[in-house]
Amino acid sequence: MTYCVGLLLNEGMVLLADTRTNAGFDNISIYRKLYTFEEPGERVIAIMTAGSLSVTQTTLAKLREAIEDDDATPETSIMLAPTMLKVAEIVGARLAEVRAEVDQKLSAMQGASASLIVAGQRRGEGMRLFLIYPEGNFIEATEDTPFLQIGEHKYGKPILDRVVKPATSLADAQKAVLLSMDSTLRSNLSVGMPLDLVVIERDSCKVCFRRRIEAGDPGFRAMSEAWSAALRDGFARISI
Amino acid sequence: MTYCVGLLLNEGMVLLADTRTNAGFDNISIYRKLYTFEEPGERVIAIMTAGSLSVTQTTLAKLREAIEDDDATPETSIMLAPTMLKVAEIVGARLAEVRAEVDQKLSAMQGASASLIVAGQRRGEGMRLFLIYPEGNFIEATEDTPFLQIGEHKYGKPILDRVVKPATSLADAQKAVLLSMDSTLRSNLSVGMPLDLVVIERDSCKVCFRRRIEAGDPGFRAMSEAWSAALRDGFARISI
Repeated sequence: MTYCVGLLLNEGMVLLADTRTNAGFDNISIYRKLYTFEEPGERVIAIMTAGSLSVTQTTLAKLREAIEDDDATPETSIMLAPTMLKVAEIVGARLAEVRAEVDQKLSAMQGASASLIVAGQRRGEGMRLFLIYPEGNFIEATEDTPFLQIGEHKYGKPILDRVVKPATSLADAQKAVLLSMDSTLRSNLSVGMPLDLVVIERDSCKVCFRRRIEAGDPGFRAMSEAWSAALRDGFARISI
Repeated sequence: MTYCVGLLLNEGMVLLADTRTNAGFDNISIYRKLYTFEEPGERVIAIMTAGSLSVTQTTLAKLREAIEDDDATPETSIMLAPTMLKVAEIVGARLAEVRAEVDQKLSAMQGASASLIVAGQRRGEGMRLFLIYPEGNFIEATEDTPFLQIGEHKYGKPILDRVVKPATSLADAQKAVLLSMDSTLRSNLSVGMPLDLVVIERDSCKVCFRRRIEAGDPGFRAMSEAWSAALRDGFARISI
């Protein structure tokens, strides 16, 4: 399983993804699920993936191919697309194509599916955060719903529902997504470390901070233990 | 949607269910999902239901009919069954039958499904807690897994994972299931008040405490607010 979460805040965007994938229960490995594309100061795009690795890897490969193509146009390359909306459309179209191809090959089986989070900003445009469905259609984060999740999203939603607002600071937002991931890791063993964290400050149009958090990372462990202690203390103090 | 949770602890069992059902998005109503059967001091059985109302209501009606039948036997009546395992088997068999019937009628549609939690004790036997799947098979709570959930179970699992152990007191257990429900109510609006809470003390073989918590219940609201405050405080104190 996968858990990816993206926040769209006044100060910027915060993205977090795990890296565990499994092809069957006994074939578990580590694959990056958070990809970034940037022309610093001009354009930054982050894509997070959930679902069938065969679909997400091929989709990303096709997006990269289109960027590097000598005949790349604003209609095909996400690095030339005039708006983030157009980026979301290109990504959605590639995802739907790849999914249809793979589905056809797997028709006898359950079918392969995937969903993506696309986040980014182009100079002169606002920051935008999209969730792209397997069919290629998408929804966008707003003031009222400043976060989007894909994969195993439910365990980690309560903490986000409580603390994430557009005015949340980027430091608090990093804490929130890490605690949201921590709850998910505890409740579903098939979501796993290491984690990839990316922060994009508003109007910077670049990846301002990037951190890979390995299993056993002392900072993450300390935070996780402090949160457990805070929950236990809070629980003990409440009367019914 | 539904959320029901049952805890099997050293001191007894704690059961909590919501009451919201919907037949389509614009037809929402209140139905009890927690049913109890008791011969105080001799036998107590609680059943919680999730899934298609047409399946769960008919299953419960058949179980009641079998209890009241003049020809009731230990093979048909959950109030005569010699063990809780037999109770789980009878309930599973009725559920599977009803589901198959309803499924046949609905074959053109998505099909109707349901799952149940069955908890109880018969004098001389231990307390037992089962989760019965739509097909009628079941699993049982153990020392390692002292709680079972049906319905919209993920939002409320992290808190249970952290605080519920077999040695948890019944007071703390009530707090834990109510906070677990509170997280679920916040994250999924289709799970809703009022709530039904039942406590069965070990070896009492009766319902020792029963409480219906209505929307706006001041105690529940105070607990919910205290928990939000504790989470916010804990969150603010943690550094990354």
